[in-house]
Amino acid sequence: MKPNLQIALDHNDLASALKDVAVVGEIVDILEIGTILCLQEGKKAIECVRALFPEKTIVADTKCADAGGTVAGNVKKAGADWMTCICSATIPTMKAANKEVDEIQVELYGDWTYEQAQEWLEAGISQAIYHQSRDALFAGETWGEKDLSKVKKLIEMGFRVSVTGGLDVDTLKLFEGVEVYTFITGRGITSAENPKEAALAFQNELKRIWGE
Amino acid sequence: MKPNLQIALDHNDLASALKDVAVVGEIVDILEIGTILCLQEGKKAIECVRALFPEKTIVADTKCADAGGTVAGNVKKAGADWMTCICSATIPTMKAANKEVDEIQVELYGDWTYEQAQEWLEAGISQAIYHQSRDALFAGETWGEKDLSKVKKLIEMGFRVSVTGGLDVDTLKLFEGVEVYTFITGRGITSAENPKEAALAFQNELKRIWGE
Repeated sequence: MKPNLQIALDHNDLASALKDVAVVGEIVDILEIGTILCLQEGKKAIECVRALFPEKTIVADTKCADAGGTVAGNVKKAGADWMTCICSATIPTMKAANKEVDEIQVELYGDWTYEQAQEWLEAGISQAIYHQSRDALFAGETWGEKDLSKVKKLIEMGFRVSVTGGLDVDTLKLFEGVEVYTFITGRGITSAENPKEAALAFQNELKRIWGE
Repeated sequence: MKPNLQIALDHNDLASALKDVAVVGEIVDILEIGTILCLQEGKKAIECVRALFPEKTIVADTKCADAGGTVAGNVKKAGADWMTCICSATIPTMKAANKEVDEIQVELYGDWTYEQAQEWLEAGISQAIYHQSRDALFAGETWGEKDLSKVKKLIEMGFRVSVTGGLDVDTLKLFEGVEVYTFITGRGITSAENPKEAALAFQNELKRIWGE
């Protein structure tokens, strides 16, 4: 199945995020209100993107660590379908959040374990996001076999797995044969000279590799 | 030394946060823009509290997990002095954040280790926040000897340690003899019938136990 393409709106201000999402929102499958934008503009960012795209799946990338029920209730009210929790959140936090939104995605940063991942599954969490952290990328790390085997293991465990961090059209083929659920990119699209063409190029490459 | 008293403004909207902070802001030592408020109102919440309290130390409780430099630069620009990072953030994220704000506080959730804590110290991070998670408290967990020994160990390692989660004036004495740097409370003050009296009662109890 063709993986989803998700755009991360990681802008510092609402206007520039809206400018980009207006151009590529219909081309991509999932719209993410990135953490930076959430923290800069608050729930208004979710509300505005929902107003422009009433039918799209919207993720609030809150990386929620606590007060799961309150945070999830708030983003749902603002228009989000899904929300992210950080992997170091407790199970009660994830469960509380999971009651308020349609789905929770666990963001994998730092030293998580497969034992924890199994607990998330048992708590009813069905999605995980495998990252190359932005700051790790800045520090020179890149995608490799180590990452791919972790992604495969998570998929085998039963997660739908999103992949993100420094992706471009050329890196997608590294994942050929792996049933990635969603590829997430921000600047891979928004920093392109022509964001609309960049979004189409991502979708075409996904179709070429995984089929329609 | 008397520990600091920090109020966590964990409101769902700016107006109610401002109403409370206007009453207790001068009594407490540190003003925290809580995660819920950050996500609801964005940087505006920091800007407004800074406008009202130009001299107070302000913490943005972003629980930053990635893009440390960008998030920290943004909250600093909005008026925050300190910012929180989640314990599962990578060292490059913490270091990048630490360059932009005066101090980073690491929020301890889930399965962190003392080995990681040592890495944070070596990366120049000097503050840690020991939590009872809100959702864990809802699930029936409480403060105990296990928590106190972890707090003491972190202090011995060299951290200035903040303590938070379900604290009230009566629970402060559990920490007698422990050099806690800051006690953080939200609803311990804001849900009181008289928030101003509640803040004064916290400060008086801190002075009684730890001296002026």
